[in-house]
Amino acid sequence: MISNALVGYIAGTLTTASFLPQVWHSFRSRSCRDLSYAMLFVMGTGTALWAIYGVMLQRWPIILPNSITFGLICTLIGMKASYHPRAKERR
Amino acid sequence: MISNALVGYIAGTLTTASFLPQVWHSFRSRSCRDLSYAMLFVMGTGTALWAIYGVMLQRWPIILPNSITFGLICTLIGMKASYHPRAKERR
Repeated sequence: MISNALVGYIAGTLTTASFLPQVWHSFRSRSCRDLSYAMLFVMGTGTALWAIYGVMLQRWPIILPNSITFGLICTLIGMKASYHPRAKERR
Repeated sequence: MISNALVGYIAGTLTTASFLPQVWHSFRSRSCRDLSYAMLFVMGTGTALWAIYGVMLQRWPIILPNSITFGLICTLIGMKASYHPRAKERR
């Protein structure tokens, strides 16, 4: 019988991995124009809450992948802010 | 003390909701060119496994949102296949 932790870790690895192409594409193209802040904040809050849920259940397969995904989303938000500064004029 | 189920449901609602703009955008624009099959299949498999993980733990806050997200991803794959048929010539 496959342990549930293993299933959780595989699931988490896949859903986290599916973010990597987007982060790589945004980094290489220096562009995040198509990513909306709203979607990024909703997703960021969601993955942060999943990580908190994992802490409450004391389940590492939920905590670990969602913390990494949360980090990737914060990276996307940071890139979007730096590549497309709203307030300041473009240098 | 907030119940862990509530945290899980909020997390699940947010991460599922963050898919809706993409499904709506693809449906309205009749275009999924920027979505790669590889990313969709990885994400679809990941969310399906999260749902199975939820069944193993008997936790509805994990089962429900991930099943819905899995359905949304299947919808995106279906749209991509119908809007951009590979084999047949465009009618």
